[in-house]
Amino acid sequence: MNILVINCGSSSLKYQLIRMEDEFVLAKGSVTRIGIMGSELVHKPSNKEVYDIKTPIKTHGVAIRLVLQALFDKDHGVIESEKDIACVGHRVLHGGTKYRAAAFVNEDVKNIIKSHIELGPLHNPANLIGIDACEHNLSGVPNAAVFDTGYGTTMEPKAYLYAIPREYYDKYHVRRFGFHGTSHSYVSKRTMELVGLNRDNCKIIVCHLGNGSSISATQDGNCVDTSMGLTPLEGLPMGTRSGDLDPAILEYICRREKKSIQDMLYILNHKSGVFGLSNGLSSDFRDLRAAAERGDRVAAETLDVFAYRIIKYIGAYAAAMNGVDAITLTGGIGENATWLRPMIFDNLRYLGVKMDLEKMENTVGKEMIISAPDSKVTVSVIPTNEELAIARECKRLLEETK
Amino acid sequence: MNILVINCGSSSLKYQLIRMEDEFVLAKGSVTRIGIMGSELVHKPSNKEVYDIKTPIKTHGVAIRLVLQALFDKDHGVIESEKDIACVGHRVLHGGTKYRAAAFVNEDVKNIIKSHIELGPLHNPANLIGIDACEHNLSGVPNAAVFDTGYGTTMEPKAYLYAIPREYYDKYHVRRFGFHGTSHSYVSKRTMELVGLNRDNCKIIVCHLGNGSSISATQDGNCVDTSMGLTPLEGLPMGTRSGDLDPAILEYICRREKKSIQDMLYILNHKSGVFGLSNGLSSDFRDLRAAAERGDRVAAETLDVFAYRIIKYIGAYAAAMNGVDAITLTGGIGENATWLRPMIFDNLRYLGVKMDLEKMENTVGKEMIISAPDSKVTVSVIPTNEELAIARECKRLLEETK
Repeated sequence: MNILVINCGSSSLKYQLIRMEDEFVLAKGSVTRIGIMGSELVHKPSNKEVYDIKTPIKTHGVAIRLVLQALFDKDHGVIESEKDIACVGHRVLHGGTKYRAAAFVNEDVKNIIKSHIELGPLHNPANLIGIDACEHNLSGVPNAAVFDTGYGTTMEPKAYLYAIPREYYDKYHVRRFGFHGTSHSYVSKRTMELVGLNRDNCKIIVCHLGNGSSISATQDGNCVDTSMGLTPLEGLPMGTRSGDLDPAILEYICRREKKSIQDMLYILNHKSGVFGLSNGLSSDFRDLRAAAERGDRVAAETLDVFAYRIIKYIGAYAAAMNGVDAITLTGGIGENATWLRPMIFDNLRYLGVKMDLEKMENTVGKEMIISAPDSKVTVSVIPTNEELAIARECKRLLEETK
Repeated sequence: MNILVINCGSSSLKYQLIRMEDEFVLAKGSVTRIGIMGSELVHKPSNKEVYDIKTPIKTHGVAIRLVLQALFDKDHGVIESEKDIACVGHRVLHGGTKYRAAAFVNEDVKNIIKSHIELGPLHNPANLIGIDACEHNLSGVPNAAVFDTGYGTTMEPKAYLYAIPREYYDKYHVRRFGFHGTSHSYVSKRTMELVGLNRDNCKIIVCHLGNGSSISATQDGNCVDTSMGLTPLEGLPMGTRSGDLDPAILEYICRREKKSIQDMLYILNHKSGVFGLSNGLSSDFRDLRAAAERGDRVAAETLDVFAYRIIKYIGAYAAAMNGVDAITLTGGIGENATWLRPMIFDNLRYLGVKMDLEKMENTVGKEMIISAPDSKVTVSVIPTNEELAIARECKRLLEETK
């Protein structure tokens, strides 16, 4: 059984074709700059050479057709026809709270995606186009949607309600949704397996740290809290996103700088985070780390802020769950930034955290427990794999509905 | 030595005259509705009857003169003349970061208060008028300013910086200041005495819970973090203030409701918090508690959100300090709302918190350790006393400069 995973962004499309028997990636690739000058398909079949086409790709529909041609191609392809695809799994950004797990696409699913375009203005329209394109070009293959907000649907009101007039929740569903759900779901499950925890009795904090960052708390297999909110702006400072701040700052800066609220939101999403805090030095943590090592005070302060906020979120979620059994790092920074780890875990000794210094320093991009055997809390690094998580959810859906 | 403590709000003035030898309150009172129809002075001398005048009081200057007349009055007064006042201590809302402790009022102090009017638009102008009125009417008595932001001045950049473009910090001092500083300072010091902690080696979390609420973390006698930020809007949900939320919510609601950012800020300050979340039921926690007890789901959810956010802040600050020795409740809700305590402390057993159930249930409005003797963290109730804290700071200032 092969599952094709599709992730459509506003002008991009990423895909993986996974053979589920052994979870082997038969091919993966991306289409970039859809509808923009310089569009390109990069197709990477397993055991074959990379196949790269630069050609005008005006729409996501055209992109999907190119991807299918590449997959079926006798030279660069890995399968013969659509008969070799059991299901297409679409990553969908915002689905509100109706669908927790993967769902076969039907009119209701499409309406849910449409009705959340206000909350996912860049991604949800692209996700719909991707689904339509698959329906037209793979007419015999079922499409499933896996929502990035799905994992947050188990939160209780105390975690998802904001202390604002309740009419905004009633009228516009203003609440915490959370994002990176597929990653938090996958990594928390994998943590249970790696650490040997019982799903029905475990408390796990997953730190997904990348260009976008979020932290989640999972108790007994269910997400109980997560740091992103109505939108992916809330929570930790990110590459260019501010994360948490005094809401009054928006009005204060608008007034002082004569900016509109829309201008301000753009700044908070695209000019803030570690990029803004480092005075525009970089949104890339590797650059900031290099600068801090050279003695740049502003870069060092920026990294201190990032680490400190992670520490506070871990502490908050440990309290939310009345304890924590395991803390797991994932995402580009979580998997690779070894320098960040002592900055975080030196402050968590009060929880009984005790690190294996050698493993903490040397584990890069691979699955590993990095705390000491007698640590009260097991700290791990687990590379995330959202595509595999989506494919697994689709497989489960296919098996359930057989 | 008697110290007169003055707290000027936008249309009110509260005062206490304290005899410092035994910290006895000789008289206290308030002037309300200054410059508004229905203004009134209520003067409460110790050991004498309450003296109440309803008369037009157009300015803070008039209010100060009335207060002094009442203090010196042969029937209702408690002292003879200004010779019996060693110092007037003024509570000032926003003083930025220059003055940590009490300072005698001079041109620099006045300029600091003026330059922070943008950040304390209701209070700072009233504070200045109160100082001027005392200078004119008590020409032989020194005036000292005690800043509500003073306690937060010891925070490190990792705690006070927001992840926004650094130019806003450089140009407009957009940073976390924190408020309720006098209360946090007083209660954390009193916690050290009550619990028997060494100032140079202790970690204390103070929960000031009232109509305005904030939480602080004090390590080795210095404030290291606090939940209010640039303004008193950030942090916990309050009577009518939202506290923390996804900053994108402001833009989202402005767009959906066609509101300006100024409208939105007003809503977040005056129509949100537990008042908004309870659908306008009440900003008073006693009403919400009564409704929840009657089975009102919305009221119960509102209280759950409040307790849950307190739990998360305590957890975050325990992590920020790598542990916590003592947690203290203060403020109207902290001192009196016994129902709230199990909602918080049942979730903190992972820290080794163990409560004395009888004391937790029965301690109302008085100083008491309410955790069990073998609790790893000592939990206390300590009534705050901002006026006494201000008077003590003034006394220390007088003694230092003798």
